[in-house]
Amino acid sequence: METAGMTEINEYLESLGTKAQEAKSGLQRLTTEEKNKALAASAEALVKATDRLLAANDKDYQNAQKDGMAQGLLDRLKLTPQRIEAMAEGLRQIADLPDPVGELMEAFDRPNGLHIEKVRVPMGVIGIICEARPNVTVDAFGLGFKTGNAVILKGGTAAFYSNKAITEVIREALAVQRIDENAFQLIENNDRAVTTAFMRLKSHVDLLIPRGGAGLIRSVVENSTIPVIETGTGNCHIFVDETADFDKAIPIIVNAKTQRIGVCNACESLLIHEKIADSFLPLLGEALFAKQVEIRGDETVLKKIPGALPAAEEDYGREYLDLIVSAKTVSSLEEAITHINRYNTGHSDAILTEDKKRAEKFLQEVDAACVYVNASTRFTDGFEFGFGAEIGISTQKLHARGPMGLKELTSYKYQITGNGQVRP
Amino acid sequence: METAGMTEINEYLESLGTKAQEAKSGLQRLTTEEKNKALAASAEALVKATDRLLAANDKDYQNAQKDGMAQGLLDRLKLTPQRIEAMAEGLRQIADLPDPVGELMEAFDRPNGLHIEKVRVPMGVIGIICEARPNVTVDAFGLGFKTGNAVILKGGTAAFYSNKAITEVIREALAVQRIDENAFQLIENNDRAVTTAFMRLKSHVDLLIPRGGAGLIRSVVENSTIPVIETGTGNCHIFVDETADFDKAIPIIVNAKTQRIGVCNACESLLIHEKIADSFLPLLGEALFAKQVEIRGDETVLKKIPGALPAAEEDYGREYLDLIVSAKTVSSLEEAITHINRYNTGHSDAILTEDKKRAEKFLQEVDAACVYVNASTRFTDGFEFGFGAEIGISTQKLHARGPMGLKELTSYKYQITGNGQVRP
Repeated sequence: METAGMTEINEYLESLGTKAQEAKSGLQRLTTEEKNKALAASAEALVKATDRLLAANDKDYQNAQKDGMAQGLLDRLKLTPQRIEAMAEGLRQIADLPDPVGELMEAFDRPNGLHIEKVRVPMGVIGIICEARPNVTVDAFGLGFKTGNAVILKGGTAAFYSNKAITEVIREALAVQRIDENAFQLIENNDRAVTTAFMRLKSHVDLLIPRGGAGLIRSVVENSTIPVIETGTGNCHIFVDETADFDKAIPIIVNAKTQRIGVCNACESLLIHEKIADSFLPLLGEALFAKQVEIRGDETVLKKIPGALPAAEEDYGREYLDLIVSAKTVSSLEEAITHINRYNTGHSDAILTEDKKRAEKFLQEVDAACVYVNASTRFTDGFEFGFGAEIGISTQKLHARGPMGLKELTSYKYQITGNGQVRP
Repeated sequence: METAGMTEINEYLESLGTKAQEAKSGLQRLTTEEKNKALAASAEALVKATDRLLAANDKDYQNAQKDGMAQGLLDRLKLTPQRIEAMAEGLRQIADLPDPVGELMEAFDRPNGLHIEKVRVPMGVIGIICEARPNVTVDAFGLGFKTGNAVILKGGTAAFYSNKAITEVIREALAVQRIDENAFQLIENNDRAVTTAFMRLKSHVDLLIPRGGAGLIRSVVENSTIPVIETGTGNCHIFVDETADFDKAIPIIVNAKTQRIGVCNACESLLIHEKIADSFLPLLGEALFAKQVEIRGDETVLKKIPGALPAAEEDYGREYLDLIVSAKTVSSLEEAITHINRYNTGHSDAILTEDKKRAEKFLQEVDAACVYVNASTRFTDGFEFGFGAEIGISTQKLHARGPMGLKELTSYKYQITGNGQVRP
């Protein structure tokens, strides 16, 4: 497989694309009940196949250990009976959510008698490229299937045997339900050129979603000819205004920075109004040091927080995903907004203030998917927003912004009924 | 300018991008009234500048004539006092439309007390690449400005002097209104490499819209790293079902094929149920030949319409934009749907039938932005849909599908207000 030429790769991908296209209309015709039944059956099949999944995962895990994979990544790769049950439970929860497909979004009549309906429909074929986390594979199937889409998945090579086993189990469960098993396909060719070729399978794929780190997302944006939803990079800011209530501010900052450090909605950069530098910075230093957070600050921060390290310019643009935070004093709300709009990634930014007008100005002028007043940036999440599911956090402005639920995996079409109308 | 190196080109584009970014927040803060006033002032300024615009346009026109530009394109390039008045009227009409920016799309409270509002906001900076039609330049400004976006335009080189004059007049009018004139910028470097470099100005541009022919659109999709809305290619079908009412069918087909031939919603391909081949095809041939339409048909069509030419396989995939149509007989509704889903461009397809169930099946299963029953495909148009304006017809499924009005040039943001909430 590793030496396959480009022609062979393209033929292989096109064959998957054609099968997905063929599965598409059948999927669009499924009732909500049929889809929910198939999701429940897939969940049950995964749990029943626990031994088979664990054996496949063990193969991946041992290879990854031999290849010297870091402990954190090894942990994400690992399957256990509990994790398989959790993946199955995820499918059951998706079954419980309302089905967005078929919703009549608008209906109107034109003076010439044409009746126009705007109806929510599946995207068609969704491509998903992810890294070595088997739970994302199950998730991708569940969310795509519930919304009537055929899914083609390119998983991380390190999870190949796990993904293959998961895909087989799900496809077998679909076949039992007499549903076209090509509703869910895994790309089984691990040649490096396959991923890039997949990003250009525009004639067969309607939407491509990368789920993974900044490097993967950059590569997809750079190479894809398929429309992409860019997700997940978060250089999130918290601005502590001169009017902030310190009793709220310290817990919010500690939560946003340390509650979970490897996630896109964690806080990476603090801005502090210079008028409160004397009173606030010592409290901040104490609270963050108690949580082993390294502070990289400007001159004022260094003066007020002994133990802080000097920040370089590039610190302000970094998504650490670690127990590190940058901290900078600013002389005004305007300076804070300008700084944030320069360095943020359009994900989540917060102001801590007791002044309504200043809060309003921040909400309006900061350019990000989610803008907060007096709350932790960690709430940017489909479940926390009450969507019941999450495909990712969009940091682009086209189609969807912020947490994406099932609705964001759909498109719409106009259905127009006439009685012989022609255009004059 | 023609010999500028890539570094110089990129620096130039980045300087435009930075200025657009700087104009952005001012634009977002403008009230609807301020925007409408500036649109009216720009309209007036264009009319007042008629002589100046005609002189600039004459320079382009003479160059284009020397370069042997085809008559149809020369006609599109040409400005007249009437056309300048029409461009100004376009701006006044945009001023009259409701402003989508600031709309509260949703508001909800979470059990933890967070209040979440989903608010419609401008995209930010929109890039538009168009061919040599000066009216599109004015349109791009008007639609972008009304929705609070900064616009950077790359116009066709053949319209360079016209675009430069139009841009100057509009920028002067904005300056008089004390609005940042960088709300509207023209790329004044005509080096061929500029267009491709512009498509990669992702750090400064939020959305890229190509307005032009299939070649331009393909190039943008192939090269852009900025999210794109693909518009305008239309291989539109009409399927004449066995139950069609011929008295409706003939006028609809003649209208869809001949009312205007160079547009994306014109009909390019006919499918005829074989059960009505004997009765319908002779009528069809007569009606289309009366309008000088060349028919390229399959064997049955050739038998029933003397004078038709044989169709090759590739005819079914062609957007002729000419007085030519392909015609094919099919043995069932299913065959028609499969054929359409294989060859269409996701634009507009119609069924002519008196059977409600068959109409419903067609509406559901044909994968296109606009699906019609008993009406001409020529109605796929922002004005015909009642949107009051049109940026283009989207043939992709991400973000917008079919006719795009002002709303489709906006995004949204979540504004979340709390009282110290942290994530447990």
